[in-house]
Amino acid sequence: MMVEIGVEEIEDIALGATILGTGGGGDPHVGKLVAKQAIEEFGPVELLDPDELDADDFVVPTAQMGAPTVSVEKLPSGREAVASLDRIERELGETADATMPIECGGINSTFPFAVAARRGLPVVDADGMGRAFPELQHETFNIYGVSGTPAAVSDERGNTCIIETDDNDQLEWLARGVTVRMGGVAYVSDYPMTGRQVKETAIPGTMSLARDLGRALRLAEDDAMDAIREVTRESIYGEARSLFEGKIVDVQRRTEHGFVFGHVDIDGLDGDEGSTMRIEFQNENLGAAVDGSYVATVPDLITVLDRETGGPIPTESLRYGARVRVLGIRTPEIMRTPAALDVWGPKSFGLEATYEPLADHP
Amino acid sequence: MMVEIGVEEIEDIALGATILGTGGGGDPHVGKLVAKQAIEEFGPVELLDPDELDADDFVVPTAQMGAPTVSVEKLPSGREAVASLDRIERELGETADATMPIECGGINSTFPFAVAARRGLPVVDADGMGRAFPELQHETFNIYGVSGTPAAVSDERGNTCIIETDDNDQLEWLARGVTVRMGGVAYVSDYPMTGRQVKETAIPGTMSLARDLGRALRLAEDDAMDAIREVTRESIYGEARSLFEGKIVDVQRRTEHGFVFGHVDIDGLDGDEGSTMRIEFQNENLGAAVDGSYVATVPDLITVLDRETGGPIPTESLRYGARVRVLGIRTPEIMRTPAALDVWGPKSFGLEATYEPLADHP
Repeated sequence: MMVEIGVEEIEDIALGATILGTGGGGDPHVGKLVAKQAIEEFGPVELLDPDELDADDFVVPTAQMGAPTVSVEKLPSGREAVASLDRIERELGETADATMPIECGGINSTFPFAVAARRGLPVVDADGMGRAFPELQHETFNIYGVSGTPAAVSDERGNTCIIETDDNDQLEWLARGVTVRMGGVAYVSDYPMTGRQVKETAIPGTMSLARDLGRALRLAEDDAMDAIREVTRESIYGEARSLFEGKIVDVQRRTEHGFVFGHVDIDGLDGDEGSTMRIEFQNENLGAAVDGSYVATVPDLITVLDRETGGPIPTESLRYGARVRVLGIRTPEIMRTPAALDVWGPKSFGLEATYEPLADHP
Repeated sequence: MMVEIGVEEIEDIALGATILGTGGGGDPHVGKLVAKQAIEEFGPVELLDPDELDADDFVVPTAQMGAPTVSVEKLPSGREAVASLDRIERELGETADATMPIECGGINSTFPFAVAARRGLPVVDADGMGRAFPELQHETFNIYGVSGTPAAVSDERGNTCIIETDDNDQLEWLARGVTVRMGGVAYVSDYPMTGRQVKETAIPGTMSLARDLGRALRLAEDDAMDAIREVTRESIYGEARSLFEGKIVDVQRRTEHGFVFGHVDIDGLDGDEGSTMRIEFQNENLGAAVDGSYVATVPDLITVLDRETGGPIPTESLRYGARVRVLGIRTPEIMRTPAALDVWGPKSFGLEATYEPLADHP
């Protein structure tokens, strides 16, 4: 049965991916607008289970790259990302059979649908982060041996760069430099791969999980938390749990080298009264500590919700005085292997913590 | 008659190009070492008059890019620049018939000979700056309509970037960003062009002029100034003139965005006693003013010589207390058209001056 993604599904994916995006991944509103516009113009997009891919299918992931605080001011048309996919095809002399997100969060969960609609391609129901992460080497593709290059970086003026390296950390380093020079936001196609590589390395089902999370949130009449619990319980992720409730008393942010670094402090309410949670972030939430002790860290998901509406709040929208609930979701096993923790465990982000998976049930 | 460049000619070109390099272009010692090593290993290189090129010959210029103060610490092997030429060939599916310098100064006058020796190619006796300039759009190639891209930027780790843009200013901007990320020094092949385009846009004879200047300096027994005058008198440049003599009393330098910015102050001696000359530079010397009035500006050449030996002193070797003579050489007409002055006249570097060509005779 072919699964189609239309305008309503884009709304749901954008909302659900904001939970999986753990505060980052760029403004979901931007990706949503761009994807909806493309689908309205070119029609709905097929969502393809990775199992349906042929081993030698050619899959080219597409994404926006840059600091979320910038992308709000610099709206893309969707053609920029098509340009980076076109450039990879020209480089490799091969036509893409599908595109795919490199992360599941904010703008990059919906952006590939804009590319797919414009190019008449399906989107693979999978990604390489299972959440949002700030850098291009933060990919199961990288962890499990796929080369990130050739990668194309393009901008809205028609400039493109093709990067080649045998070190995916260098891909991140060079592409980030180019992105900063392109005005802080660019469009990237990287980790071009075969259907077999997608099946071996991608985190499956994350787009449909985002869609289901978004739909559940949209339909939830009173308890958003219950809706999120129910959807996650049936996924390869752990069941969502509430980590903390309180009021934001401090937010620190700085944009540096194309990233947004900072932390938010939350004074506890009700059951958490008397305690303070600090969440540190680099684009995405990295670690949550209560009174100095970590209760959740990367790669597990830490998402801040509006305490009244249950809506997820991206890091750039965290404001003093907001009443919030902090959610934790354990990531699937493919994201928690020793090889994976080397790339995106707490220490790789400079956190003085050892990763301990969130228990399934509170 | 085929003109060959061997180890001795590389010595002369490196020395002569330091005069034409107006203080910049990178450490000539580095380019010399790399070129000599390649010629010793692979044999001498043919220096090809632009007139000998066929209209559809494929010429790929090669250069080092980066801040001169860095290149002294990071010695290239010569293979890095070959990598960028190879990458352009692969990109365009065409094999180079010759390489060529993009500037005549410091490292970049000799570096293409290392590439040429390793690849068995001739070097065209011409360049696109007629001197050294700090940026990639500072090229007669750009001024007279050649696209700078596709351009390849490579580093010593085997990373490469192919840049494509229809704006040569963007080429500079993006390649500079990549160069900074590659550690401050990279190897670039840009402005790939036909033999016809070389004939129409390059400044001819600059490699043989550098060689003749270097040889004259090497053989000059007492008066280096006389030797330089004699060689320049017979060139398409104006005859060299002495602008100032004095003692360095201040040098200010800062490395920013991959460039070395600064100025040197020289207190006059003998005929110039009581006056002070300030030379402003961005990698290369840009303008020389005596007591606040410009006496020479870009694109004309301003070169600082050791007052005793007559040897040219690059900006990174200017030291407090050194006794120096400042030389001025008017550039050829192709470098002084209104189109050229738009790109590299004094105002394009932020100098509050109007370009006035140095008179031929003092």
